[in-house]
Amino acid sequence: MMTKKINVNELIEFLGDNLISIQGDYFDVFIDNLADIERVNATTLDWINPLEVNKQEMAESSKAKVLIVDRFINYSWELESQKKVLLVVGNPKLELAKIGNNFFVEKLVPTIHPTAIIDPKAEIGNDVYIGPYAVIGKSFIGDSCIIDSNVRIYNGVTIGVGCKVKSGAVLGGEGFGYEIDENGNRFSFPQLGGLVVGNYVEIGSNTTIDRGALSDTVIGDFTKINNLCHIAHNNKIGKNVVITGCVNISGSNTIDDYVWIAPNASIRGWIHIGKGATIGIGSVVTKNIPAGETWVGNPARKQEKK
Amino acid sequence: MMTKKINVNELIEFLGDNLISIQGDYFDVFIDNLADIERVNATTLDWINPLEVNKQEMAESSKAKVLIVDRFINYSWELESQKKVLLVVGNPKLELAKIGNNFFVEKLVPTIHPTAIIDPKAEIGNDVYIGPYAVIGKSFIGDSCIIDSNVRIYNGVTIGVGCKVKSGAVLGGEGFGYEIDENGNRFSFPQLGGLVVGNYVEIGSNTTIDRGALSDTVIGDFTKINNLCHIAHNNKIGKNVVITGCVNISGSNTIDDYVWIAPNASIRGWIHIGKGATIGIGSVVTKNIPAGETWVGNPARKQEKK
Amino acid sequence: MMTKKINVNELIEFLGDNLISIQGDYFDVFIDNLADIERVNATTLDWINPLEVNKQEMAESSKAKVLIVDRFINYSWELESQKKVLLVVGNPKLELAKIGNNFFVEKLVPTIHPTAIIDPKAEIGNDVYIGPYAVIGKSFIGDSCIIDSNVRIYNGVTIGVGCKVKSGAVLGGEGFGYEIDENGNRFSFPQLGGLVVGNYVEIGSNTTIDRGALSDTVIGDFTKINNLCHIAHNNKIGKNVVITGCVNISGSNTIDDYVWIAPNASIRGWIHIGKGATIGIGSVVTKNIPAGETWVGNPARKQEKK
Repeated sequence: MMTKKINVNELIEFLGDNLISIQGDYFDVFIDNLADIERVNATTLDWINPLEVNKQEMAESSKAKVLIVDRFINYSWELESQKKVLLVVGNPKLELAKIGNNFFVEKLVPTIHPTAIIDPKAEIGNDVYIGPYAVIGKSFIGDSCIIDSNVRIYNGVTIGVGCKVKSGAVLGGEGFGYEIDENGNRFSFPQLGGLVVGNYVEIGSNTTIDRGALSDTVIGDFTKINNLCHIAHNNKIGKNVVITGCVNISGSNTIDDYVWIAPNASIRGWIHIGKGATIGIGSVVTKNIPAGETWVGNPARKQEKK
Repeated sequence: MMTKKINVNELIEFLGDNLISIQGDYFDVFIDNLADIERVNATTLDWINPLEVNKQEMAESSKAKVLIVDRFINYSWELESQKKVLLVVGNPKLELAKIGNNFFVEKLVPTIHPTAIIDPKAEIGNDVYIGPYAVIGKSFIGDSCIIDSNVRIYNGVTIGVGCKVKSGAVLGGEGFGYEIDENGNRFSFPQLGGLVVGNYVEIGSNTTIDRGALSDTVIGDFTKINNLCHIAHNNKIGKNVVITGCVNISGSNTIDDYVWIAPNASIRGWIHIGKGATIGIGSVVTKNIPAGETWVGNPARKQEKK
Repeated sequence: MMTKKINVNELIEFLGDNLISIQGDYFDVFIDNLADIERVNATTLDWINPLEVNKQEMAESSKAKVLIVDRFINYSWELESQKKVLLVVGNPKLELAKIGNNFFVEKLVPTIHPTAIIDPKAEIGNDVYIGPYAVIGKSFIGDSCIIDSNVRIYNGVTIGVGCKVKSGAVLGGEGFGYEIDENGNRFSFPQLGGLVVGNYVEIGSNTTIDRGALSDTVIGDFTKINNLCHIAHNNKIGKNVVITGCVNISGSNTIDDYVWIAPNASIRGWIHIGKGATIGIGSVVTKNIPAGETWVGNPARKQEKK
């Protein structure tokens, strides 16, 4: 991991109003890394999960000098004698994430790699990164998007602002729909629709999302899709939906906002999944699922609360 | 979607002998799009599914002026008063699909993109499209094939005529077979076979089909394979087989003609699946399946007719 | 398959001390191919599986002149009259595999394709092959590795010696981890860890392995991973693990040495799988699995011995 010396003063400035208070003397104190619990060292910015039962002890035994904590950690004699610095916030993990993104995550410089092949009729927004060997058809890509290497975007795809499409993803490909001709052989049903992706959507590596047949495939704002998922034609997927690795979503489903789909789940076509529903790992969904329910198994059934 | 003005006369000419009759005055009438039921407008070429119970009403309430129907739609006073035009055919959806493919689907111009890397010993047929960043080894590709961007075809692959290989597919890769050496470590068993793909086969994006070990992997004519499928070494897959998204077919199976495999099914190795069998979504097939049967579940079992 | 004339003398020299004895007159005898049982011909190097009940008959009825066998095949009058040559070894299939790899498998010449894009800060070992359109970040690649076409290796990946990464694989991508901000929208949790791949590891086509969040993702020596697998952030995977096609391994698992994971299995996060355990095809693992056990089903349960 990249290490980088950051003074506590910089963290204080960055946290702004989200910083409730500071405990300990932070003059000239710095951190230079984030780390998992097994790898925390003296200069790690550590954090204490408010949900831990023994969180006070965890704070007192951390090897790190600086910790992000909530207000239920007591600045005990033990902490004081170790000269620890506590940054007290409402949601320690959230603030840690923001600090990590701001100070440690390498930012791609918006640029279009010279090997990217972009249709002259494509419209590309401002501050877009397009990586090596990406191939982009007559499509629209909004501001501040990251389109990574070897991504294929076919014609008729519209992508909002702030989206990330990871290496090897294929967007707007021809849907899998066939008719049988007079000789009993399959041929393609015309796939004339588009693919409309909202804002701040992330699409994982080697994931495929097909365009619609006679309507559009739609992915809502803030929806996050992991690697190796297949989303077939005509799906209407809402906002803030989480689609984890290796999920297969067959055609023409409606998946409402805040649905959470665990890894390797399969969803039959023509299904409706209600707002905030949860689909368990490896589930095979063959029926509509009402809002807020959790379904698991093969075939998926409602999981009753225990 | 692309719109394009097409006079009914052109449709009549295209349908030829498949047009049973025409109802209504079609002088100067045109259509300019195909659409899903929610998006039908006055200039859509709509169609009425012969299986719908209320198909007469559907025809009468369609917003479109021109409809493809079967002969059980009555040219009622209601239809006449709306000046609707009925194109009467045997199989409305089939004719709609052909019209869509002929008039609305953008055709790729056969061409080999300058960035495609093709082994000097490869044999490429006539009218072939090879997209950007495709990499093709010592293989044979038949006439009128489409090999899309970022596709990898290794040595020893034979592809028939009229096939489509979508972005990111990998054909003829080394199969996953290992021996254990004297130190207990795995090393590759030689994968010396080829991959033989028939005619009019479609292979989805990011799908992988491995070459055989000591024999060939074979895919029959008109078989259609969706995105993100893995077909391991030594499989013998018949004609007009449908393999939907995210299916895993382990090595050395024999899958007969007209088998239909639903999404995310897994097939163990050394299995025989008989002609026309159906494998349900998310099924885990660990036994031979007789012709014509439907198997579902984990592990898959025969689905009895209800 | 490539054919190549190889004199039995060459085989004898290659087998060295692993050759127990030779039966039959091999003066001027050669082989020129390896083949599956259905395709064996006079010049195939055939082998007889020691586990077959009727192995003596198999040897006697083989169309091949030269066979690799164990010492329980009797050089019968039948074999003698056919002038067959038996190469007697301890483990016929193992020796066949070595012969195949040595004499028949085409070796890639170590070379870096001019279209590969490699970060100037990447460290590439000796005798490495990097294929067309591979994109490699600030990473370390050990000696004798094969990095095939269209592979993407992000920053912070360390790969040992003798590894093979097949076309379209994506290594070291950003893990799938999110926090929810004050507006209820997801944003990325920083993914700052690396990916450490051991020696002699193989990674299949279009497989994705993410880097760690605040620690590293680790893959042990000799582990073999098939196509279209997803291995999420923070996994610690041991040595000689076999991960077959389409397997999904969620984040933060510990998978010990010699575990075998069958196709399309899904593993929940934060699981421990003990040494030598076997996970069945299509299994959904939601609990820790003790060493040596076999678990199958959805959800996976211990398979009792029958």
